[in-house]
Amino acid sequence: MNLTELDSDALEDAEARLLAEFESLKSQGLSLDMTRGKPAPDQLALADNMLSLVGPGSTSGEDGTDYRNYGIVEGIPEARRLFAEYMGVTPEQIIVGGNGSLTMMYDVLAGAVLFGVPGGNGPWPRSTAGGAGGQKTSKVICPVPGYDRHFAICERLGLEMISVPMRDDGPDMDAVESLVADPSVKAIWCVPKYSNPTGATYSAAVAERLAGMNTAAPDFRILWDNAYAVHHLGNGPVEIPNMLEVCAKAGNPDRVLMFGSTSKITYAGSGVALMAASETNVADAVKKLSFATIGPDKLNQLRHVRFFQSMDGILAHMDKHAAIVKPKFDAVEDALKSRLTGKGIADWTTPDGGYFVSLDVMDGCASEVIRLAGEVGVKCTPAGSTFPYKRDPDDKNIRIAPTLPSVSEIEQAMTVLCVAVELVCVRRLLGRN
Amino acid sequence: MNLTELDSDALEDAEARLLAEFESLKSQGLSLDMTRGKPAPDQLALADNMLSLVGPGSTSGEDGTDYRNYGIVEGIPEARRLFAEYMGVTPEQIIVGGNGSLTMMYDVLAGAVLFGVPGGNGPWPRSTAGGAGGQKTSKVICPVPGYDRHFAICERLGLEMISVPMRDDGPDMDAVESLVADPSVKAIWCVPKYSNPTGATYSAAVAERLAGMNTAAPDFRILWDNAYAVHHLGNGPVEIPNMLEVCAKAGNPDRVLMFGSTSKITYAGSGVALMAASETNVADAVKKLSFATIGPDKLNQLRHVRFFQSMDGILAHMDKHAAIVKPKFDAVEDALKSRLTGKGIADWTTPDGGYFVSLDVMDGCASEVIRLAGEVGVKCTPAGSTFPYKRDPDDKNIRIAPTLPSVSEIEQAMTVLCVAVELVCVRRLLGRN
Repeated sequence: MNLTELDSDALEDAEARLLAEFESLKSQGLSLDMTRGKPAPDQLALADNMLSLVGPGSTSGEDGTDYRNYGIVEGIPEARRLFAEYMGVTPEQIIVGGNGSLTMMYDVLAGAVLFGVPGGNGPWPRSTAGGAGGQKTSKVICPVPGYDRHFAICERLGLEMISVPMRDDGPDMDAVESLVADPSVKAIWCVPKYSNPTGATYSAAVAERLAGMNTAAPDFRILWDNAYAVHHLGNGPVEIPNMLEVCAKAGNPDRVLMFGSTSKITYAGSGVALMAASETNVADAVKKLSFATIGPDKLNQLRHVRFFQSMDGILAHMDKHAAIVKPKFDAVEDALKSRLTGKGIADWTTPDGGYFVSLDVMDGCASEVIRLAGEVGVKCTPAGSTFPYKRDPDDKNIRIAPTLPSVSEIEQAMTVLCVAVELVCVRRLLGRN
Repeated sequence: MNLTELDSDALEDAEARLLAEFESLKSQGLSLDMTRGKPAPDQLALADNMLSLVGPGSTSGEDGTDYRNYGIVEGIPEARRLFAEYMGVTPEQIIVGGNGSLTMMYDVLAGAVLFGVPGGNGPWPRSTAGGAGGQKTSKVICPVPGYDRHFAICERLGLEMISVPMRDDGPDMDAVESLVADPSVKAIWCVPKYSNPTGATYSAAVAERLAGMNTAAPDFRILWDNAYAVHHLGNGPVEIPNMLEVCAKAGNPDRVLMFGSTSKITYAGSGVALMAASETNVADAVKKLSFATIGPDKLNQLRHVRFFQSMDGILAHMDKHAAIVKPKFDAVEDALKSRLTGKGIADWTTPDGGYFVSLDVMDGCASEVIRLAGEVGVKCTPAGSTFPYKRDPDDKNIRIAPTLPSVSEIEQAMTVLCVAVELVCVRRLLGRN
């Protein structure tokens, strides 16, 4: 029953029915949170043995270095080796850092704004009282919908964001290629695998165009946030191009900075962060870091190395995550399918990995859906979050984060969300909002 | 025997004797490192039990929050309580962070340059291609000799450094008060207790003048790096003024940012960092941090809380450090005293705590002393390191870091250093260099 084809009598009937259902849900006093991509406790517990692997007498590295002491800004060698394999690079091409890749990404852009990056002509101009007068504000291309924290960094640092549509195989490359002809366009955010929030994965063709395109800025950077490199939903990680190799092959070895972390592999708050890039970019990052730190927490890196031992260890671990997470994504899909299919008011993604489902509702309805769901005790990521400046121009995108709640909580929350979607869209069709 | 009073024959005799001793030391093939203030392995081992206090099933906080997951940018409440007592503030006035206070200090100044601080008029202008054209470069007062990494942050960020002499009770306050009449003078570095490198401790009078002085910059900041708050050498920590209280009393509650860490209490590489300040400054810092991190490593904070349990636990722990470190400082003092007393060529400090001894030799001799010691296999902190831009205008200061080597290594290294001092100064008196 496509709601968009109903006459107003039928729509009014639907509205009455949905309103009754909505009121009955409201009376249940729910309190559910689907706002953030947080791992569930049983996912975190998968890594608990890691805590026992560094103890009194076992705090030194493979070469006898005392990892309790200062030093080793770039990360311990055994961690660089393991995570080089994870990122598909050499140990010389990776920095293993502290507990969050967000910090590395922030530092890269703050460092660009303060000092510039290799191949460029000094600091990236930004829009602020303290910025460089007369110079054009640097711009960052943002495929949308995308990750709110990427956008927040740009906004904070005074880097102008330009949206381009995200497709099933990556960003709209015609749009990207035309934008980079402007020398003030300095970077693009990419979540290349199981993208946040759509779950899309970049194709080899898109990766090659990104690597090879002519950028007017000599210091253009692809910010390749491979946050979900191994975070599949049961069928093993999909393959994506090794972006550092693709860029090197295209003659632009310094173009890409690849990020990763174990935040959603071991512990969200106590993982290790990764940045992989050309040796030129790594040397630049280490130099920048060396003013701000005497070294990362090496014992936590050592815990990780001892826990996983190898890339196979990481992959085996991720199968256990998939077993926990898959039923939750299924619950989301089942609810959307059974309640919204064929109604002409919503589309959604069915990802093979990552942490999100992206739901598009009728234009102009997302904020109201989220508000209504909130009234019933279901918190969703605020409308607009997946767009630069928190402005979804069509007010249609809703990000669903199913990992933290239990399956039964998701079922409840999705019922609420679907009823809210239908109710808001019916009212829209009736011209009521 | 004051060498400065000898005639040239006697000086030549001394030179020959010292040269022979120097050559004999050289033949011993020493390899000793006194460059950095690193804890020794037996100091680090004092905290090893900390590693066993957070394990499977014991990863939640006092209120049940799962500390393995994301969040809590300002630090876990139990750590804020414990370290608030350590810093002499309320839990609302402290941020407990990652593994290094250097990062917090860098972030404060980078944040000032990028965004400004509460009470100011936007970003602090800096000297760089990307800086704000036409505005006067911001300046930071640096008591000298001081901590090289403080100076490196300023130089890196394009903040101009102005040296003022460090006295036994803090910086030359007449000089400081006259400098802050310039609105481009924005901050002063202070290591208020057992200062790096002289070991001096600020007096209440100096603290009050710093807190109460009229600064032309409304957003002037005292960067109060209380790195050695409890790091005494056997007689318990000396008392210093509670700078946040002193500033509040003077009507300048936002003037001071106080830093601390457990890097030299638990593990140099895996401690926790602390910043204490007014609630206005804490809110500003948390806002700045929230763009760059989803939270610190909360499990490591929990380890610390469980290990110490209370301020008394920290103090008892520091007595154990003192028992290890004191004999090393004694070995430095004994060597200096027995070899250089009364010779008219050197003065040095005898601190009650901290990590360093500061040795002043005849003007123009420090670089050559350090070069010669290096020839014999004794690495000292490079000459000039304790001054802004690595330039000691008198080339006389040498920083001795006795904690890492063993007592017998220190005895060897100090013999080398003292012979080098005497040889270089004798030659200087002979007009040879």
